[in-house]
Parts: sequence; structure tokens; C-alpha cells
Amino acid sequence: MYYVGVDVGGTNLKAGVVDEQGRIISKVDCPTQVERGHEAVVENMAHLALKAIEKAGITLDDVKSIGVGIPGVLDPRTGRVPFCTNLGWHDVPVIQLMQKVIDKPIYVDNDATVATLAENVAGVSAGAKSSVFLTLGTGVGGGVVIDGKVYSGAHGVGSELGHMITVAGGEKCTCGNRGCWERYASATALIRMGTEAAKKHPESILNKAENISAKTVIDAAKAGDKAALEVFDEYTEHLAVGLVNIINFIDPEIIAIGGGVSAAGEFLVKPVREKLAKKVFYKAMPYARVELATLGNDAGIIGAAMLGR
Amino acid sequence: MYYVGVDVGGTNLKAGVVDEQGRIISKVDCPTQVERGHEAVVENMAHLALKAIEKAGITLDDVKSIGVGIPGVLDPRTGRVPFCTNLGWHDVPVIQLMQKVIDKPIYVDNDATVATLAENVAGVSAGAKSSVFLTLGTGVGGGVVIDGKVYSGAHGVGSELGHMITVAGGEKCTCGNRGCWERYASATALIRMGTEAAKKHPESILNKAENISAKTVIDAAKAGDKAALEVFDEYTEHLAVGLVNIINFIDPEIIAIGGGVSAAGEFLVKPVREKLAKKVFYKAMPYARVELATLGNDAGIIGAAMLGR
Repeated sequence: MYYVGVDVGGTNLKAGVVDEQGRIISKVDCPTQVERGHEAVVENMAHLALKAIEKAGITLDDVKSIGVGIPGVLDPRTGRVPFCTNLGWHDVPVIQLMQKVIDKPIYVDNDATVATLAENVAGVSAGAKSSVFLTLGTGVGGGVVIDGKVYSGAHGVGSELGHMITVAGGEKCTCGNRGCWERYASATALIRMGTEAAKKHPESILNKAENISAKTVIDAAKAGDKAALEVFDEYTEHLAVGLVNIINFIDPEIIAIGGGVSAAGEFLVKPVREKLAKKVFYKAMPYARVELATLGNDAGIIGAAMLGR
Repeated sequence: MYYVGVDVGGTNLKAGVVDEQGRIISKVDCPTQVERGHEAVVENMAHLALKAIEKAGITLDDVKSIGVGIPGVLDPRTGRVPFCTNLGWHDVPVIQLMQKVIDKPIYVDNDATVATLAENVAGVSAGAKSSVFLTLGTGVGGGVVIDGKVYSGAHGVGSELGHMITVAGGEKCTCGNRGCWERYASATALIRMGTEAAKKHPESILNKAENISAKTVIDAAKAGDKAALEVFDEYTEHLAVGLVNIINFIDPEIIAIGGGVSAAGEFLVKPVREKLAKKVFYKAMPYARVELATLGNDAGIIGAAMLGR
């Protein structure tokens, strides 16, 4: 049997057919065009799924289920999506709307949760009984696997790891709190810190960039720029603080790091591992490996598909 | 069948016989006398268990297993206790030593984990599929129940909730890090904050106490003392920060609060619930109830006993 995964982003919709082992058989995409309204977008999602099935050379009969990853959360009590800030959705019955087009079981979950599942089935965390997946992008998304299953909590509101408060009273967050981890550990944080450092250090090569991106800061740090190295050191320090919280809390087998900032590779995870070793509570006991996620952008399709496995 | 629970504290050893429903049938105790060394203490633990069995009017044949709660952690790979700071233990084979005296299955787990299990079997969290238990005492201890089972993580180093960093760069902690939650949410924190406030506010009734305890601060706040109220407000704010992290991370059904500070009762949990409502990420969705633990000091015996159930 095959599974279809639909990855719903603010910019693009992607769909793909995935086999039992989590391998992608076909892949299609189109612009999301949020401004069309949720009914048109969800209908488009269903048709994109059918297109992926056609492209894979299979039929709907070969498909067990459709999974959908959204930048939001499904309320398990209602089967509806209460809101997706990035999509402007409020109380959208995604499952019902898609089933008007495709008569198959449909599963919906958070995009970071879905990516977590993907890494746990076919990526760096494959086979781990417990794992945490982090995506360091505009924000910090997270997912938790316990006993081999994605764990979203009793009310489906868990694994919002980016909104763990690590600097109480710190930077204002979009969620209304202050000091959320994602204010210090996201690509956005790296940009903010890099921009501030550039102003303070006119000699820094950070000032050569027209717009400072996370990559600008990472590349400047890699090139040995003093201001960028200081920023990157502060960034990995904050990253390590959140990781030590994850370890001290649920002690997973492995923590997989994905998202834009993870493109920095070993340059990122090496100092994080070193800082972590000094911060974990039980220093003489084994604790989670910190590894780079391996599936990249495909994690959205693979994980969504695997929701029905 | 019956279960025996042994609660190992720095000051006292307690043992009790517990029935299938988590009710205590008999209870005995004696001083720990840590200075005797671990062999004498562990032998005493075994004999205390036998004394509890005798007092309950049953025989060893009626007992299924012995459970032990320790202020430390068991390494599941070795079956030994690598260390208990409060007891001065290093690499102690608790199970082997106890089995020299009692030939029964013996289970060992962290005291906070054990209290979590107790509350989940016979206390305020009874029947919850997922729960978190916190003990606000000298430090902040924590335990996590997922899918009805106590969850200590992949390497047995999880649920150290007091060492979640909530104020990065903040107060120095005994664990070597800065800004651990227990520096702000324990009885010790309340004493520190109360002592500082007393110095700053000579008019405060806090200055009437010879030694400021957590109870001094709580009583003064209850009496309307301005300085104490400010301290208590700051304390509940920090408590709420950690609770929001727990909810945003694993979203349990219920969070039970025990330990010395919980004696403040509704005066404690009411403001914490109000602050939490403003801080949780998904404000329109249901989330964990915050309740006072109900088993008090018996949680140690009951939970240890229930390890073998």
C-alpha cells in the first residue's frame, strides 16, 4: 500500500506518494495563494494529492490514507483546525472539506510534528523509541516521539518547544510571552543578533551584506569574523540551554536538528554538543545524541503520509 | 497481594505495606543516619520493610515486591545507583544489597518519580493517562506520567524538572548551571526572595521572624504584608513560567503540586492558574488542570510500593 502526504506551507502546497518505508515515489507542488480563502486552498490540496497519485502511476485504490501537515494544530475534539496564523485560517474543517473530493481516511497534524515522524521513520532518528525533532527556522518548531509514536499531549497542544521560556522577562515573543526559546534559537534570532553586532562592530564583514540573513552570520563566523563568532557563540549557548531542558525533562534517545539554521552542519552541532556536555544534570550518565536531521524539505511530505501508517 | 514501599530520605527512612488500591496498611520509620555508610543504611531499609510487613499482620508470602524511592537515580544499565548527593552514595548496588536480606523482586526509582506514581494511582491525578507531579521543597522535584506509566526517559535521566533553565544567565544553581527553575520556584527560592525583601523593607512583618522560612513569607503575604505580597507575586510568576513550559512541551492532563510550599493551598494555586491562562500558547484550547497533590508525605511509601504493581 501507499500513503499520500500533503505539506501545507504559507508559500507552497506540496503533495507526494510515499511507500511503507517512507520513500517518496512522486512529488508535485503549486503555490498556496492563501488569499483565495481556505475552501479553495483545501480543495486544491485534495486535487494536488490526486495529481501525485497519478504521477506515481498508481490509483486511489492503492492508497491507504492521506495525511496533511499544517502550520497549526487540529483540535482532536472537533476534527477542525481552530487556527493557522500563517494561512489566516480560523475553525477550518480540513478533513470534511478534503473528503468531499477524496473518499479516504484523512489525518491532519502540525507540520513540526509531521517532520518529527518523518525523521523517526526514514531519517536520522529511524527506529528510536523516543526522539525530539527541532526545526530552526523563522521560529523554532518541535516534535516529540515517545514509545515510537508522535506525542502531541492530552489536548493536542504539546510539543510547542519554541515557546518554552528560557529567558524569563526577556525578548518579547509573538505568542505574547517574554523570553521564549525561539526568540534566541531561531534563524530570526540569529538575524537580530547579527544585525545588532554589525552596528556595534563597523569592522565586521557582516556590514558587507545588504540584508543580514542567518546564512550571512554563519558564513561570517565560519570565515573567522570576530563579531559574527561572538554572535554564533551566544546563539549556540541559547540553543544548548533549550536542549538541556529537553534532556532534563523527557530524556529522549536522540534530538534531531533541522530547519534553515541546520544547514550550518557540524559547525553548528559541534559547539552545541560541547556546551551540552557541561550543562546536562547527570554528567556521568548517557544522554541524547544531538544529530542533524537528514530529510530536509521532504520531511513534510513523508511525515504527513506516515500519519496514516 | 500486597506491596512494600521504602521511602529513603536524608533524615528518615520510612517503610509501609500498601494494598492494590494504593492504601497504606502499615507504616514504620527510623532515622537514616547517613554517616553509617550505605551498606548499613541499605540493610536497615530491608529490615524496616520486614518490620512493616510484621506490623501489617501479613507474611513475606503475601508480598509481591519491594519498591524503593531514593533522592537520586538508578542506572538501568547497571541496576546500581550512581550517586545520591543527599546520602553521600556513590555507585551503590541497592537491589543486590537488599536482596541479601529479602528474596523478593526489588524496584528502585527517584523519589519524585515515585511520588508522581503515587498521586497517579491514589491521589489527585488518579486515572490520568498523563500527568506531571511537582514537589516544591528545598529544590523542585518532578515526575512525568505518560500513557499511564511513569516516564523516566531513554537513559533514566529525565523528569529533572527543577533543572529546566527558565532564566538563562540567572541565579547560580547547585547543578552548575545558571537560572534553573528551582532557583526561583522552590521553598529555598521563597526564603531567598523573602530575606532580600525584608532587608529592603524594614516596615515589613517579615522582619519579625527570627528565621525567614517559606511559611513566614506565605503567612505574611496572606496577612497582606506588601513586601511579602510582592515576593509571592514574583514567586507565582516564576512558578507559572515553568508550568507553561511543561504544558507547551508535553501537555499533560493534570499537573499536581506537592511539597512544603503547596501547604499554601488555594492561595498558591489560584494566582498560578490565572497567570498560566495568560501564558499558555493555545489560549482557546483546553490544557492541564493545576491541582494540589493530596497524599502528602505518604506519597513516598505509596509510590515506591506501586513500582512493582
